[in-house]
Amino acid sequence: MIGGMSRWEPNARGRLEQAALELYVERGFEQTTVAEIAERAGLTERTFFRHFADKREVLFAGAGSLREFLVSAVTGAPESAAPIEAVAVALEAAGALLQERRAYSLQRQAVIAANAGLQERELIKLASLASALAEALRQRGVTEPAASLTAEAGIAVFKIAFERWTDGAGQQELPQVIRESLDELKAVTTGK
Amino acid sequence: MIGGMSRWEPNARGRLEQAALELYVERGFEQTTVAEIAERAGLTERTFFRHFADKREVLFAGAGSLREFLVSAVTGAPESAAPIEAVAVALEAAGALLQERRAYSLQRQAVIAANAGLQERELIKLASLASALAEALRQRGVTEPAASLTAEAGIAVFKIAFERWTDGAGQQELPQVIRESLDELKAVTTGK
Repeated sequence: MIGGMSRWEPNARGRLEQAALELYVERGFEQTTVAEIAERAGLTERTFFRHFADKREVLFAGAGSLREFLVSAVTGAPESAAPIEAVAVALEAAGALLQERRAYSLQRQAVIAANAGLQERELIKLASLASALAEALRQRGVTEPAASLTAEAGIAVFKIAFERWTDGAGQQELPQVIRESLDELKAVTTGK
Repeated sequence: MIGGMSRWEPNARGRLEQAALELYVERGFEQTTVAEIAERAGLTERTFFRHFADKREVLFAGAGSLREFLVSAVTGAPESAAPIEAVAVALEAAGALLQERRAYSLQRQAVIAANAGLQERELIKLASLASALAEALRQRGVTEPAASLTAEAGIAVFKIAFERWTDGAGQQELPQVIRESLDELKAVTTGK
């Protein structure tokens, strides 16, 4: 019975994520092996592969839930909200979630910034978020090219705001940086 | 002397590009080999590798000149031009160049749309164009985050305009689609 119980590892996924991120920060992403991640987490490699396809996946496993969160926030925005406002509300809500995990977000960002392949993967993630937002806007009845332009503009704001937030000394909360960046985008596009 | 002369192949690069694109369209990018490209162009593999690192590079060799062209157009815009206007002028000028090579652009786009790896490479190219535009704006004295936001917004407009242009029946010229997309971006960011 004990043997049977011990195969269920409490919060294995969270422990693996934490161990992976620690090692990526300490040794670099390339230099870290799955065996080392499993060992640091006190788990087996087999358990690692039950949760993640590979060591890169640890950093991008949250992309799917972020996409679903953004889509559902856009879909749930009041009917009267202008497209850019629906996107802004969704991005600010996602920003609040990331704000709660600020330490994790900063570490993850540092690991990605140090590796060209991870930066490319992050760009692909952002492009997929933009596509999902555009589709959510079309579901709200927004026509093209307004839907795609609004979505791309929203993701551009999110990207720049996230960089400002991680580069900054942490004086500002991410949702506030997102809102300010959107206001700045309005100012620059109208030719300020 | 004849032997010496024959090693110089007139317009080898252009012939290789043309042959590669034809084969990518006919057979798909993955299914085409460098040997086949060289054969179609009536050249040797060795000549291919004097011009391109690999078969993917044929599709992205122009990225460097596009970046330089955009940067120099932003740098050369009148001092009085607002940042978004400097970027708009640069994108429209680049659009006019692509318009002249419309058939090539459409074929290239079809090849890229059919291959996930090439789409990712194209996203990376766009991100590098945005970084270069932001740097050119900072050189004009534009501060952050305005420089990065303007550059990202410009590239978002370029991306959507390019898609509309290649998807469309060719009624509109690319510079005009770029201008209209920018106007649409202004409208959506101000909450139309």
